[in-house]
Amino acid sequence: MYGPGDVRVEERAEPRILEPTDAILRLPATCICGSDLWPWRGVDDYGWPAPMGHEYAGIVEEVGGEVTTIRPGQFVVGSFFASDNTCEICRAGYQSSCVNRKAIGAGGAQAELLRVPLADGTLVATPEPPPEELVPSFLAASDVLGTGWFGAVAAEAGPGRTVAVVGDGAVGLLAVLAARHLGAERIIALSRHVPRRKLALEFGATDIVEERGDEGVARVKDLTDRLGAHSVIEAVGTQESMMQSVRSTRPGGHVGFVGVLHDVELPGEELFDSHVHVHGGPAPVRRFLPELIDLIWRRAIDPGKVFDLELPLEEAAAGYRAMDERRAIKVLLRNSSVPGVGSSHEGHP
Amino acid sequence: MYGPGDVRVEERAEPRILEPTDAILRLPATCICGSDLWPWRGVDDYGWPAPMGHEYAGIVEEVGGEVTTIRPGQFVVGSFFASDNTCEICRAGYQSSCVNRKAIGAGGAQAELLRVPLADGTLVATPEPPPEELVPSFLAASDVLGTGWFGAVAAEAGPGRTVAVVGDGAVGLLAVLAARHLGAERIIALSRHVPRRKLALEFGATDIVEERGDEGVARVKDLTDRLGAHSVIEAVGTQESMMQSVRSTRPGGHVGFVGVLHDVELPGEELFDSHVHVHGGPAPVRRFLPELIDLIWRRAIDPGKVFDLELPLEEAAAGYRAMDERRAIKVLLRNSSVPGVGSSHEGHP
Repeated sequence: MYGPGDVRVEERAEPRILEPTDAILRLPATCICGSDLWPWRGVDDYGWPAPMGHEYAGIVEEVGGEVTTIRPGQFVVGSFFASDNTCEICRAGYQSSCVNRKAIGAGGAQAELLRVPLADGTLVATPEPPPEELVPSFLAASDVLGTGWFGAVAAEAGPGRTVAVVGDGAVGLLAVLAARHLGAERIIALSRHVPRRKLALEFGATDIVEERGDEGVARVKDLTDRLGAHSVIEAVGTQESMMQSVRSTRPGGHVGFVGVLHDVELPGEELFDSHVHVHGGPAPVRRFLPELIDLIWRRAIDPGKVFDLELPLEEAAAGYRAMDERRAIKVLLRNSSVPGVGSSHEGHP
Repeated sequence: MYGPGDVRVEERAEPRILEPTDAILRLPATCICGSDLWPWRGVDDYGWPAPMGHEYAGIVEEVGGEVTTIRPGQFVVGSFFASDNTCEICRAGYQSSCVNRKAIGAGGAQAELLRVPLADGTLVATPEPPPEELVPSFLAASDVLGTGWFGAVAAEAGPGRTVAVVGDGAVGLLAVLAARHLGAERIIALSRHVPRRKLALEFGATDIVEERGDEGVARVKDLTDRLGAHSVIEAVGTQESMMQSVRSTRPGGHVGFVGVLHDVELPGEELFDSHVHVHGGPAPVRRFLPELIDLIWRRAIDPGKVFDLELPLEEAAAGYRAMDERRAIKVLLRNSSVPGVGSSHEGHP
């Protein structure tokens, strides 16, 4: 990205092993995240040009000398923060706050090759290289599924609970899927876009609310004996969506917030009086990867459905535009040079 | 209270049963809460004059026609919100957000007699009328102990956890006691006042930190391998103390906030990045009363130690001044006309 609205696909130097704990992955596909739209819209200011992309799943091409559990040839999934997975914070399940964490963004995962630091702690391998049709789901596991899952866990979605999901992007939709898998009794998806509502219902939503803001709050209360939902998952990241989430939650209930907050201030008095639990942040996707990979491998869940537009990597700019204009929920970018998704090429170029 | 700094003790009409679910209590003692200092200092603006006090324990004098479990002659403890204890919110343990809750403040518990609404749901009786020396502890259970306890539970204090307590008022000190009782491994009390530090150590603190703000955060990190505490209890209610609490908590850890927040804004981005859990609000003291009463009755805990100044009710104004100037942690006001604490009178006046 050369600046807001300016995405270009160009040849860059191939990433190399820099640390003995690194791995290099070859990516059959990559994708665009809702959070990539913040800089695209000029809300987040980066040092331009910036390599983009932080979601990845692919074949291990090479590993550094100290990597012991990850081997070339494996198909692996990782997350947007590399983590050692051994520190006290990782062991508590917060790998995205690992004391040695490293952001993946630097190299850019919207590419054919990616360097991943702390490979042993970060990457989780599938039982075998997966069939092509599962690749989108593994790619989803890297961020949007893992993030929606964390939102549902942070909101304590589970049996007997009524869950409301604020936000109908890929994360919100996959939070619906997570809440269903976690056993929630009732799942209210807040969405006014027909294709997204359809997918929400497919993923397990039991009710759809089209209203937003105070009206959205009122509708959720109507559906919950005026009490509010037990669990609310915030998957947008604005002041309005955050307050809507807090106000849609009953006293003693839980807000799980996974939308990256931008210029949000939580008023202390209202939070005090609301009696809600608030928890969220950058999803510790690594915590959930073994389970998510297993569920995808067994075809128990199909999170890859959030990709409703596929383009060749070369057309990334069109993908950004489609997501910005909400013509696509999430865009998959195929690497035609890499065997795997949608490719008939054999071997590496 | 006739206005900031203006407390007067005067004869008022005796409270009467207004609803068939009411009870009238005769209070052997009453007390001043840290939160009573907000209006005294002019921070909270009431309609003056305002009857003061919301902490109470006493003998049931009379009950309304629909009260079934509470009987005249019992010694009972209640909390600052009356609750039905039967609604879904109460059953989930959030009685202070009961759908039928009523504030106790209206009548004023800094008095000889008090009307308590929803008596069956609100009041918990001791096994028998207690000996005089236990009355201060039962009075503490009504608010400051129950609130400190909620803070410790909300912060998930427990075995293996390092707990930090921000605030050395009665609530903070009793949060130390609660954390100890809940099995916390290490308890860091943030306090610079010698008598309070002494009581914190007596209640179970293992470490004392005198610094505040960023320095206080740094000292807590020094004591916790740079990670922060697992559990932090916020018992002040200012922007500084709230941010100090968030920043003293490790990723994945819990902030339990029970200081009544005044002009506090939680910055969303920092909360997102911190990965902490945040929960608090008006303590659902009713949830804990049966256990707290049992612990006091068995003399397993002695929360009444927070009262370090006793005055006759007539000298309430001096009590406010002593607390405001931090000459007293908490002031007990004796009702010399009521049998019980510090009284040699027999029978009712």
